Amino acid sequence: MGELLETGAKACPPWAATVLTLFPDMFPGPLGYSLIGRALQNEIWRLKTLDFRAFASDKHRSVDDTPSGGGPGLVLRADIAAAAIDQAKAWSAAELGEARAAAVPVLFLSPRGRPLTQAWARDLAAGPGVILGCGRFEGVDQRALDGRGVQEISVGDAVYTGGEIPAMAILDAVVRLLPGVIGDPKSLDEESFSAGLLEHPQYTRPAVWEGRETPEVLLSGNHANIAAWRRAQAELVTKERRPDLWRAHEARKEQSDGNKDAPTEAREE
Amino acid sequence: MGELLETGAKACPPWAATVLTLFPDMFPGPLGYSLIGRALQNEIWRLKTLDFRAFASDKHRSVDDTPSGGGPGLVLRADIAAAAIDQAKAWSAAELGEARAAAVPVLFLSPRGRPLTQAWARDLAAGPGVILGCGRFEGVDQRALDGRGVQEISVGDAVYTGGEIPAMAILDAVVRLLPGVIGDPKSLDEESFSAGLLEHPQYTRPAVWEGRETPEVLLSGNHANIAAWRRAQAELVTKERRPDLWRAHEARKEQSDGNKDAPTEAREE
Repeated sequence: MGELLETGAKACPPWAATVLTLFPDMFPGPLGYSLIGRALQNEIWRLKTLDFRAFASDKHRSVDDTPSGGGPGLVLRADIAAAAIDQAKAWSAAELGEARAAAVPVLFLSPRGRPLTQAWARDLAAGPGVILGCGRFEGVDQRALDGRGVQEISVGDAVYTGGEIPAMAILDAVVRLLPGVIGDPKSLDEESFSAGLLEHPQYTRPAVWEGRETPEVLLSGNHANIAAWRRAQAELVTKERRPDLWRAHEARKEQSDGNKDAPTEAREE
Repeated sequence: MGELLETGAKACPPWAATVLTLFPDMFPGPLGYSLIGRALQNEIWRLKTLDFRAFASDKHRSVDDTPSGGGPGLVLRADIAAAAIDQAKAWSAAELGEARAAAVPVLFLSPRGRPLTQAWARDLAAGPGVILGCGRFEGVDQRALDGRGVQEISVGDAVYTGGEIPAMAILDAVVRLLPGVIGDPKSLDEESFSAGLLEHPQYTRPAVWEGRETPEVLLSGNHANIAAWRRAQAELVTKERRPDLWRAHEARKEQSDGNKDAPTEAREE
């Protein structure tokens, strides 16, 4: 403790993001704009990149090799991936101390990963930071993932040329949840996924545009009716577009109806 | 036809992406790098941005207003969104002709949207281009979406500060599927989602790393055994991480077992 104070470390270090990539120049890129960019300048979060090529030891700076067992493409070598992770972990330990650094998850972007959810984004925002590995090629040698306790994460059911853009998506989703980033925290309560439903449609002035009217209830000033209409619309759009979310929503409702004493937080995913 | 030739229009125009945004400077950003950036330089695709603020008529250049019915945040106005869409459609018509331009979908990024899938990315790549609207604030006036035939699309079950990074994800996923972008098209056949399963794990040299061995079968040279092992691993990881994909995969298999005459393409999602 005394040592931390002596070195001038802040009581509350910024949320620490470290990105492992072959394209460090892509960062901060779009993360340098708007609310997320301002939060970066204000040191609510910090962003460091590590270039996988910095850990290549041969003169060609190669980081990849052909897949064992054959097949197209190239695989990121275990020694390269592990060396980058170890360096990122050493940075975390220096900034946060060993104990908090141990709570920084190492996530590699991959279509094989578990899908990002808003609940996962909230968990990440509640922690001290994240180490994000951006794969390219055909993937990463599985032994580096196993040996370094890496979890794979995906963003959307599509295949990208690399993990960099999905990593930016994760950082955007997480940083906006950090205290002080969004001006009106009420915005966070009503948005899609926060109660397991998609959000109701929105309207603004004028009341009539190109012959299309704003639903009358929204102009009524009756807050109970407005809330009921929005709730019904949220259910409707969720049922229609996301039967998966709707089923999960219904299952939670049944569970909670059968167990009225359960804390209400359990109903939020 | 004669007119087209006279104006020097190419027989095959590049795949045309138009992004509507409040942050045009974010683009091309990460899309300027690597395979996708090279394809942009080589005019396999083209990228234009339209700033919503260009369609604001008052001196404050305002594009948003408070939600009808109350609530936090601001909503993008219908007239602004519609004017930007109309301009983007006019560009498409000038480049592609009215008929092909009509096949350019208008998609707005929103957590309320239908989720991006690899199948959707393939559909987009097969078409002439896309118009992508990037929401900010609390959303877009629903009447502009209804009046201009906009479909909402989401990338991952999370909420972002804006649609720009998810729009980049969509463009990356689509452009890599365009002919001539990826050197070895075989890579596209074996990857995750292409057969409704996640991909098997990958390994590369050396055979032993930090005491961890490459699975023996991959070093055997027996291609049938390797293929069987990879298939089993793909099924295992899909079952464990994506019960949703696994159920869909099983349903397709049953359907195809019950109808052996069905074309095999029907089995791919």
